Amino acid sequence: MQKLVEGIHHFQDRIFRPYQEFFARLATGQSPEALFITCSDSRIDPNLLTQTAPGELFIARNAGNIVPPYGAVHGGEAATIEYAVAVLKVRDLIVCGHSDCGAMKALVDPHGCSGLPAVAKWLEHAEATRRILATSYPELKRPEELLEAAVQENVLVQLEHLRTHPSVAAALARGELHLHAWIYQIDAGAVFAYDPAREQFEPLGTTRGLVRPPARGTKRLVS
Amino acid sequence: MQKLVEGIHHFQDRIFRPYQEFFARLATGQSPEALFITCSDSRIDPNLLTQTAPGELFIARNAGNIVPPYGAVHGGEAATIEYAVAVLKVRDLIVCGHSDCGAMKALVDPHGCSGLPAVAKWLEHAEATRRILATSYPELKRPEELLEAAVQENVLVQLEHLRTHPSVAAALARGELHLHAWIYQIDAGAVFAYDPAREQFEPLGTTRGLVRPPARGTKRLVS
Amino acid sequence: MQKLVEGIHHFQDRIFRPYQEFFARLATGQSPEALFITCSDSRIDPNLLTQTAPGELFIARNAGNIVPPYGAVHGGEAATIEYAVAVLKVRDLIVCGHSDCGAMKALVDPHGCSGLPAVAKWLEHAEATRRILATSYPELKRPEELLEAAVQENVLVQLEHLRTHPSVAAALARGELHLHAWIYQIDAGAVFAYDPAREQFEPLGTTRGLVRPPARGTKRLVS
Amino acid sequence: MQKLVEGIHHFQDRIFRPYQEFFARLATGQSPEALFITCSDSRIDPNLLTQTAPGELFIARNAGNIVPPYGAVHGGEAATIEYAVAVLKVRDLIVCGHSDCGAMKALVDPHGCSGLPAVAKWLEHAEATRRILATSYPELKRPEELLEAAVQENVLVQLEHLRTHPSVAAALARGELHLHAWIYQIDAGAVFAYDPAREQFEPLGTTRGLVRPPARGTKRLVS
Amino acid sequence: MQKLVEGIHHFQDRIFRPYQEFFARLATGQSPEALFITCSDSRIDPNLLTQTAPGELFIARNAGNIVPPYGAVHGGEAATIEYAVAVLKVRDLIVCGHSDCGAMKALVDPHGCSGLPAVAKWLEHAEATRRILATSYPELKRPEELLEAAVQENVLVQLEHLRTHPSVAAALARGELHLHAWIYQIDAGAVFAYDPAREQFEPLGTTRGLVRPPARGTKRLVS
Amino acid sequence: MQKLVEGIHHFQDRIFRPYQEFFARLATGQSPEALFITCSDSRIDPNLLTQTAPGELFIARNAGNIVPPYGAVHGGEAATIEYAVAVLKVRDLIVCGHSDCGAMKALVDPHGCSGLPAVAKWLEHAEATRRILATSYPELKRPEELLEAAVQENVLVQLEHLRTHPSVAAALARGELHLHAWIYQIDAGAVFAYDPAREQFEPLGTTRGLVRPPARGTKRLVS
Ligand SMILES: [Zn+2]
Ligand SMILES: [Zn+2]
Ligand SMILES: [Zn+2]
Ligand SMILES: [Zn+2]
Ligand SMILES: [Zn+2]
Ligand SMILES: [Zn+2]
Repeated sequence: MQKLVEGIHHFQDRIFRPYQEFFARLATGQSPEALFITCSDSRIDPNLLTQTAPGELFIARNAGNIVPPYGAVHGGEAATIEYAVAVLKVRDLIVCGHSDCGAMKALVDPHGCSGLPAVAKWLEHAEATRRILATSYPELKRPEELLEAAVQENVLVQLEHLRTHPSVAAALARGELHLHAWIYQIDAGAVFAYDPAREQFEPLGTTRGLVRPPARGTKRLVS
Repeated sequence: MQKLVEGIHHFQDRIFRPYQEFFARLATGQSPEALFITCSDSRIDPNLLTQTAPGELFIARNAGNIVPPYGAVHGGEAATIEYAVAVLKVRDLIVCGHSDCGAMKALVDPHGCSGLPAVAKWLEHAEATRRILATSYPELKRPEELLEAAVQENVLVQLEHLRTHPSVAAALARGELHLHAWIYQIDAGAVFAYDPAREQFEPLGTTRGLVRPPARGTKRLVS
Repeated sequence: MQKLVEGIHHFQDRIFRPYQEFFARLATGQSPEALFITCSDSRIDPNLLTQTAPGELFIARNAGNIVPPYGAVHGGEAATIEYAVAVLKVRDLIVCGHSDCGAMKALVDPHGCSGLPAVAKWLEHAEATRRILATSYPELKRPEELLEAAVQENVLVQLEHLRTHPSVAAALARGELHLHAWIYQIDAGAVFAYDPAREQFEPLGTTRGLVRPPARGTKRLVS
Repeated sequence: MQKLVEGIHHFQDRIFRPYQEFFARLATGQSPEALFITCSDSRIDPNLLTQTAPGELFIARNAGNIVPPYGAVHGGEAATIEYAVAVLKVRDLIVCGHSDCGAMKALVDPHGCSGLPAVAKWLEHAEATRRILATSYPELKRPEELLEAAVQENVLVQLEHLRTHPSVAAALARGELHLHAWIYQIDAGAVFAYDPAREQFEPLGTTRGLVRPPARGTKRLVS
Repeated sequence: MQKLVEGIHHFQDRIFRPYQEFFARLATGQSPEALFITCSDSRIDPNLLTQTAPGELFIARNAGNIVPPYGAVHGGEAATIEYAVAVLKVRDLIVCGHSDCGAMKALVDPHGCSGLPAVAKWLEHAEATRRILATSYPELKRPEELLEAAVQENVLVQLEHLRTHPSVAAALARGELHLHAWIYQIDAGAVFAYDPAREQFEPLGTTRGLVRPPARGTKRLVS
Repeated sequence: MQKLVEGIHHFQDRIFRPYQEFFARLATGQSPEALFITCSDSRIDPNLLTQTAPGELFIARNAGNIVPPYGAVHGGEAATIEYAVAVLKVRDLIVCGHSDCGAMKALVDPHGCSGLPAVAKWLEHAEATRRILATSYPELKRPEELLEAAVQENVLVQLEHLRTHPSVAAALARGELHLHAWIYQIDAGAVFAYDPAREQFEPLGTTRGLVRPPARGTKRLVS
């Protein structure tokens, strides 16, 4: 805790004071352009990753960047989404998974939730991810491959869940909202985005081959 | 979106490359010391505020930094708390509210949730906040005073909710976890922490009078 | 009731006896090719409409042909869908709304659910339909136009809900299931199917102009 | 699907055209006399079985013809029942189980719901059926005998559940509604109805011994 | 509190000491013969009323002596009933309402639950009572008459709910459990029991006309 | 039942008649000073134990004297608490556990809830108790020691749950309500109360060493 207190002290001296006017303007309202939904994992700093300043990203974070289908949980996700879309009128909605995700590890490990009843119940909202892994990736045996596929399929599953939220469905119907499936690969410092046309995740924000391609493109046939 | 993509590009060039070793170490695991629960408000950047690096704070964010009592919602908050306390074994748990909070405005405004059914249901978990305002602050009439009291009482209410989570109750019983109620005042660049002994919020991390004192200390008598 | 008893008597004499062998084969198992989800409305006879025999259609019926998102209700719809897709392995899944639907009338009428608490709670799963109507069809004032749009938008909304069911998501991911949005127009004896490419409902099963076109094609832009 | 499309085509030519006037009258309203609750099983065609025309039966169908007690699920069954009884004012309410029911097989087989979480949750509303089987039929060992008892007891259990629905309770209190427990035996082309006086299921609609009697009458002592 | 502490002191001296052997035998187990479900109202003392000693009555008490249908609430009532019937094997189950009941007053008063959200939600399990009052007693206008009918109808409604509990259904099916609907009239010191044959409440435990008859017999026609 | 009927008869003759005036006053209203929440166990008679008369204690009873956190169950406990605190304005709220509690035995026995699904679900609200036992009392092996610790920890856990109820939180904030954790030891005829200052249970209502001290004081460190 001492470190956090000193950090805040440092923030006040080095960040707040020089930019006092910026913070004063900020103090009376916000108009972020995007809702960024990501994992609670300590290694993700959405503002650092996107180089955004306070005021630019509305952020929801939980273990596994999960978005329960509308009505499945009267929880924080539904309220945060509704507030972002219907009140703040954000134009973009990003679900961002990440490599080495503890929640996804728990999902693919049969004993991953032992002694963790709340995590187990929460991962019921990734049951579609689990079932897609079982039926579409039967050949994957090594845990790290399974994990990689889980991370990818899960952001797509959660994106489908997002569409059932009335505020999202209405904004989509009017063409006023765009959905994005991202994956942050920590060791590569890179973000991959799902390309619906090519049906796979592709590097975002660079064409210079900095990042290695994901193990496999997920193939999602639209009925 | 273009701005976010460029930001990520910038992150890769200026942050990731120079610190590639740091991120490589980070890529295989995390051991944050605290769980930081705060609002989705775009103006809050927990890592900026506490001057922490990736890997240091496990973060849960939702509209209104609300923590439903255990069992009230099988949602992301319960799972994230359980994962942080029982798996990552964080030592500190902070609920951090903030000034000018849209969720708290919706709470104190009788029409604040009109057309927002998911927000309305979510704020049922701040019903205790609402009732404390009605019975302990009947003299407050001006919206900004009510809002200030709401923000303060709400972090205390959510802290009580936290205690009902089994992983938290067990860690508290063993003296292995500490709970903190904080408020981030945007225009002052300051954080206030609740002092149970003095029963009021006091400036954190500075004794130099940088920040103005909160309008009123909340008085919470323990039965 | 007397009429029903006599009807069964008649069935035994005129249908069962002549086709006793057919029913004997049927008695030990089923392998329907489609799951047909439609309204409880007495005017819909799915087997008559599709000219199918016993054994050909697995059928779920409720007021409003509503399919709650997965997890929103641990109800009959989820179980029936899971059984049809994961056990019976149906290849097609049809959500079929209809003209003059009482549930949709209740949805668009502000007082439509007065005194009907169970119907009101059920129609919360058509909240997306309601919100799309409010934001995409603000110019519609006449009840019959609103109803027509409600019926159309609702089958599309329920189809989105279907995608969140794990068995459906997994079968879609493997290309083993196809989803269809239909509307049965009682007075025209016609069925309209949604064409995702043209983003509107079009007559099914005939090109001969028997049926009048729907009042308006619904425009659903995919993000 | 091609078959269904052709079927609809056929319906338009051979059924709709000749009876256009009938369908035109039907198009503006319905006043069915009964609510028929039955299984989604493809082998059941309620209109064929009772020789009723469109407009005569309001129909709810789900896997296992289950009716959760009021409040247990805010699902389609409650809304459909409320609509049928309170709005359409049906006079008769029939719960119709059937032989060879897959849902009942899953209920009596300890592994019947493995891999089917939604079915498992749904069958919790037949827990009373399961418990009656365990305590009142301990001597039944052979699966087909257990299944037969399960089908019979389950319609009685679901009928008890029906009585807890407020619209049903109120209509029963006024003597304006009658409840019926039926079982459709596919291979016999016969329907059995429960006779409360004799406490067993008896053939309906025939006294000519067409159907073989059910294996055993269920004995239900009224306290 | 001082009074309660002194009372316990008194109990120790005057009750426990003289009957120490009785309490010693009691200390290692219980085998009550009945489950008594009644209101939390302070004026009801079930042991005083039935002149029973510790060990004789298993007792569940809540506001309004309400028993939600099985599955409607995963609450104390269901667990207490299951424990009493399946573990303790009680032979009788009594639901005992009472005159001047605050919960029933709240039920019949349109504003009775204002500011009481938990009471309002709880009384949803007496919705059938409310609907029976509306449809079967439209002529009752005076609050005290409505209240009297509410108290009577409500114990019958809750008795129907009881039947949906699997342990109860199974015990009833075997004839090992008997259900009783009672009303305790405080000012008369009398208990009325529902007589299914005569379809009305009648004085219990006396034929000497001590008590005045209930204002009206409730008429419940069995379908 | 005959015994209960005779008991009521006896009550009418020996208790009601002589105290008819007392009961007449009681008949029109109540103003109890405390809400007493205890187990349904037949061996507990709250009025006998505290030597209180009808009208003095508002009483809630369920298996295990459990109080789910607010919102976790829309059940009788929440409504009864809200009614007692917000309507009757009781000043004291007692949660009273007891020795030899069947619910606590089921909690600490891994097979304690087998065949008892409703009890199992109910005991999820004592999950914190279970987790505290596992982490703070790992050395306890003998069932009777575990049970004793379970009974003690559970009343403290349920007291924490109580604080999340809005009516309780608001009354506590104003200093108008006091919470008490009690344990009734049947064989000692004694009540123990938790002393927050000394962090252990101590004999209530006597200083004369009548009762043996509990096996161990629970140590609950406040963060
Ligand atoms: Zn993660
Ligand atoms: Zn906020
Ligand atoms: Zn309809
Ligand atoms: Zn079936
Ligand atoms: Zn009462
Ligand atoms: Zn007990």
